[in-house]
Amino acid sequence: MSTAKLRDFIAAMTRLADQGLAEGPLLEKAKPLLAGLIAQDDWLPEEFAKPNPERYSQYLLHCDPLERFSMVSFVWGPGQKTPIHNHMVWGLIGMLRGSEISTGFVMKDGRAVPDGEPITLHPGDVEAVSPTLGDIHLVENFYKDQTSISVHVYGGNIGAVKRNVFTPEGETKAFISGYSNQTVPNLWDRSKEAA
Amino acid sequence: MSTAKLRDFIAAMTRLADQGLAEGPLLEKAKPLLAGLIAQDDWLPEEFAKPNPERYSQYLLHCDPLERFSMVSFVWGPGQKTPIHNHMVWGLIGMLRGSEISTGFVMKDGRAVPDGEPITLHPGDVEAVSPTLGDIHLVENFYKDQTSISVHVYGGNIGAVKRNVFTPEGETKAFISGYSNQTVPNLWDRSKEAA
Ligand SMILES: [Fe+3]
Ligand SMILES: [Fe+3]
Ligand SMILES: [Mg+2]
Repeated sequence: MSTAKLRDFIAAMTRLADQGLAEGPLLEKAKPLLAGLIAQDDWLPEEFAKPNPERYSQYLLHCDPLERFSMVSFVWGPGQKTPIHNHMVWGLIGMLRGSEISTGFVMKDGRAVPDGEPITLHPGDVEAVSPTLGDIHLVENFYKDQTSISVHVYGGNIGAVKRNVFTPEGETKAFISGYSNQTVPNLWDRSKEAA
Repeated sequence: MSTAKLRDFIAAMTRLADQGLAEGPLLEKAKPLLAGLIAQDDWLPEEFAKPNPERYSQYLLHCDPLERFSMVSFVWGPGQKTPIHNHMVWGLIGMLRGSEISTGFVMKDGRAVPDGEPITLHPGDVEAVSPTLGDIHLVENFYKDQTSISVHVYGGNIGAVKRNVFTPEGETKAFISGYSNQTVPNLWDRSKEAA
């Protein structure tokens, strides 16, 4: 388990945030960074990869101290899915393990209606969402019998962003997603690294 | 247990690091921030305040992703003490709970010799060390029968800094201190905050 990969990604994302880019150029640079991180599934600590039989889990891996971005492992138990929801900030979804299906929605007459074909993400794939790119979707584990895990990076502290879920009955409800974990990985012990 | 205090301190330290100040002006601004944080002992999560009967503990609370600073809770069991050591970066020591005694040393003819009167830190006190201010000391818990805790901020990732311990026999040995914990506090779940 190499924590160095995750540490290097977070440092690179921090340097990117420091550049103060607009969403387009930022995502153009962040996408290959995330793709590089998820290219091999050998770095996520076990504790942040555990499914919960009751509900999907969203483990915070890192939050930028200035809350310009945050990063989670999104862990799907078999057959689990989200409600229809938006993000209100940009998001990158990188498939690390297993597979998930994302169905896009658009608002029509005050209710969320399906838009286009569902997308299936396979290990290594990276997808983007945002208020400008299309921000509403429903996501589910492709598998009815195994865990899937995607790694998400958001353009803010997703544990603080006020956003919405949309019910099948056409209601819009406010929510803040929070996190499933009380502690995040310590990536910074380099005392055992080769001198 | 308010994680907001620690979160706010880390954000303020990050903004300070972004200013790129020299050590003097930086410490001048960081000292009152740390003094403000330790003024009340009501925010350190239990998990990062536990003494280890075998040795003192150094729990990472936060590391700046660009490794410009790091922050630990230093937990002393009864009667525990450090070897004589240096830091190689600036350090601020804020006494949170209990009391500790710091004895300064200087190098003379290649060995560390005591310098000046030992300093006793009481809750609320903040002390500074650095290669320019005086970097070598031995620190011990003032109490033989209770836990003491100080909160340290260092001018780098102290889990990666190559520094030294000095033996009573006059030897200088290299060491990197590492951390006692595998996970750090998640300070970023703001889903329960008042809207
Ligand atoms: Fe989503
Ligand atoms: Fe020290
Ligand atoms: Mg910065």
